[in-house]
Amino acid sequence: MDSFTLDGLSPIAFGSGAFREAGELIKNAGLGGKALIITGANYLQKTGKIAKLDDQLAAAGIACEIYSKISPNPRASEVNEAAKIINETACDFVIGFGGGSAMDAAKAAAALAVCGGDIWDYIRHWDDFETRPVAGALPVVTIPTRYGSGAEISIFSVISNGETNEKAVLTSPEIMPSLAIIDPEFCLDLPLEQAGYAVTDIMAHLIETYISGSGSSPVADSLTETLACDLIKNASKIIRGEASIGEHENIFYISLLALTGITHVGRGGDFPLHDLEHPLSAYFDVPHGLGLGALFPHLMQYSFEHAADRYEKLYLKVFKRMADEGFQPVNAYKTETGALERAANAVDCFTEFFTALGSYKKLSRYGLSEDKLDKLASDVIRLYGHGQLFIPNAKKLRYSDIIEIYKKAI
Amino acid sequence: MDSFTLDGLSPIAFGSGAFREAGELIKNAGLGGKALIITGANYLQKTGKIAKLDDQLAAAGIACEIYSKISPNPRASEVNEAAKIINETACDFVIGFGGGSAMDAAKAAAALAVCGGDIWDYIRHWDDFETRPVAGALPVVTIPTRYGSGAEISIFSVISNGETNEKAVLTSPEIMPSLAIIDPEFCLDLPLEQAGYAVTDIMAHLIETYISGSGSSPVADSLTETLACDLIKNASKIIRGEASIGEHENIFYISLLALTGITHVGRGGDFPLHDLEHPLSAYFDVPHGLGLGALFPHLMQYSFEHAADRYEKLYLKVFKRMADEGFQPVNAYKTETGALERAANAVDCFTEFFTALGSYKKLSRYGLSEDKLDKLASDVIRLYGHGQLFIPNAKKLRYSDIIEIYKKAI
Repeated sequence: MDSFTLDGLSPIAFGSGAFREAGELIKNAGLGGKALIITGANYLQKTGKIAKLDDQLAAAGIACEIYSKISPNPRASEVNEAAKIINETACDFVIGFGGGSAMDAAKAAAALAVCGGDIWDYIRHWDDFETRPVAGALPVVTIPTRYGSGAEISIFSVISNGETNEKAVLTSPEIMPSLAIIDPEFCLDLPLEQAGYAVTDIMAHLIETYISGSGSSPVADSLTETLACDLIKNASKIIRGEASIGEHENIFYISLLALTGITHVGRGGDFPLHDLEHPLSAYFDVPHGLGLGALFPHLMQYSFEHAADRYEKLYLKVFKRMADEGFQPVNAYKTETGALERAANAVDCFTEFFTALGSYKKLSRYGLSEDKLDKLASDVIRLYGHGQLFIPNAKKLRYSDIIEIYKKAI
Repeated sequence: MDSFTLDGLSPIAFGSGAFREAGELIKNAGLGGKALIITGANYLQKTGKIAKLDDQLAAAGIACEIYSKISPNPRASEVNEAAKIINETACDFVIGFGGGSAMDAAKAAAALAVCGGDIWDYIRHWDDFETRPVAGALPVVTIPTRYGSGAEISIFSVISNGETNEKAVLTSPEIMPSLAIIDPEFCLDLPLEQAGYAVTDIMAHLIETYISGSGSSPVADSLTETLACDLIKNASKIIRGEASIGEHENIFYISLLALTGITHVGRGGDFPLHDLEHPLSAYFDVPHGLGLGALFPHLMQYSFEHAADRYEKLYLKVFKRMADEGFQPVNAYKTETGALERAANAVDCFTEFFTALGSYKKLSRYGLSEDKLDKLASDVIRLYGHGQLFIPNAKKLRYSDIIEIYKKAI
């Protein structure tokens, strides 16, 4: 088991109906008397949920300002503007209310309000770029309205630069939220398409380090496998239109754990799929989960022979185990005895799963074409290569490999 | 899934050899320039490990004092004395170095140094007792030298009152450690007997809420089941004398997770076995893990018919699953088809496991006799009954039930 560090976790209040206690929960956290609510432009305003939060905060004696201009892929310019408002209106803390974009923007703005300047200077987006260190941040409360991103209790914030079409990651323990309020009831009206994208994101968070890392961390492997099984079981009900609050609670809990590091520790591994996806959503505003699903089967096909033991283990502990216990979520599952055949079958099973989720699609309809691949692949290497000419993966992904994978997804 | 809160988690540095970096890790945590190391009387001093920590801290520019009088079941009087030393020597933070007892004492002393008075006044040990609230605590670093207690990242501190022979729990988010440094190499020379007790404690942390709670939290169930399987697999190697550092790393990681709440959330449930064990170790200084193992099979026998679905699920997802995957750790496992027979077989399997661990023993040799049962059972109800006349469990444990269970363990 490789040595590891974990950065601690935010306190969590989880449960259907938890949002109705948000004012009281935030008051009890003792973060101050005034908050900036950071959120997206549409859904929350239209449904009156911002007003409900506002009312609750007022009842709890907390004043608030609202910044509701966050894009689905949040922009550095929006973060800069939000941080300015935090300071101008003397807010004590920040509330990220919405999907991953609202929470990521809130976390970045909370840091920028303390550290000053332009958020893009704090984000490593070029290897020889001298990133400014995040020396502190205002407290952040996250209230996710959907599962998927895991942003509610992570030290990451994914920000896009609208001018350069770059998308990169701010990473700092300083932006770990002080409180996460998680109410699965928000997901009851999540459109099927968006639920499918979200589940794809969760599965990527779970298994990317598994298939790109070593076999040296068997307990983390076990946790990954069991959560992958439970994710597939619960998502299958969503796909069939049979989901109720129970399935949404289960998926939200899996989503929460999937990016904490608990399932990743001790085996190395990376997030090659996320590395390849980020330029896609930065250029084409493709939903993140769709970008992941569109690329994942191709990345797996490209990689599985180079990590056959890892893919075979997924076959055994996810798809075979479910079949043995009387649950067969995909038709692609076959009884195989050879190691490589099992590894290949795992790829087929996941491909069928992402297809059923609606995230495995061709990307030409979103504007992807061969002439754009050079720019995308160059961005991947520059933003995520850590100064080397490849992305870590079971099979190292060099520029030409990345071009090949993108080509298959057009 | 029932609503729940989680109190956040400490940052963790985990890995074989991590202790050699303790000075640097503690310095980087920025907790201050002077620490009180709180530890037990024997093992660490004799092996020179205190001196090694002292040297590392000095090299990192951190001064330290040492308090090394903590008993295996730490006493309130020791905590009071340690807190006095913290204040007299103007320490900025506390390091709990040793087993659960040293870490529990360190956490309690860190709170008392801020809050003042007698630690016993902060511990609920009688229902109408007006417990003083823990309003703050100095930062705590934990360096566990063995797995089992989970004290390194918990909000609990178990303290005994030497005058009244009461053992009760201080609970506060304020005592969640600021940093846990976990080095599985410490366990390489753990005597088999103590490893067996520790594994018993971990299994209790994992499954007590499972068998005393509801079936409403399937993801937490999955996590519990998979960690129970991995614990049994790795412990089997210890029992056979085949364990190497890999098994100790795995068990330490399971131990770490088992008391975080991650495997317990959303199903209610309690710790009836711990409630019954605490008076035992308070009166007879029985090692905690031995007390647990001596009682657990009897508690299970007493309860399983009242939670047959839970015990059957453990049978299916732990013992049957391991058997199906070619690993049969206990001879007691039998292929059963009836729900109640499966539930009963789970009890037999666990009983054999605790026997192999050396923790399922008769307690007469430790001084337990019928004339003492009234005092023990009364303590259980008073200390853990939360003002009611029973302990929550699949079958409520009233005074007479508790007497029956103790009797079987004599």
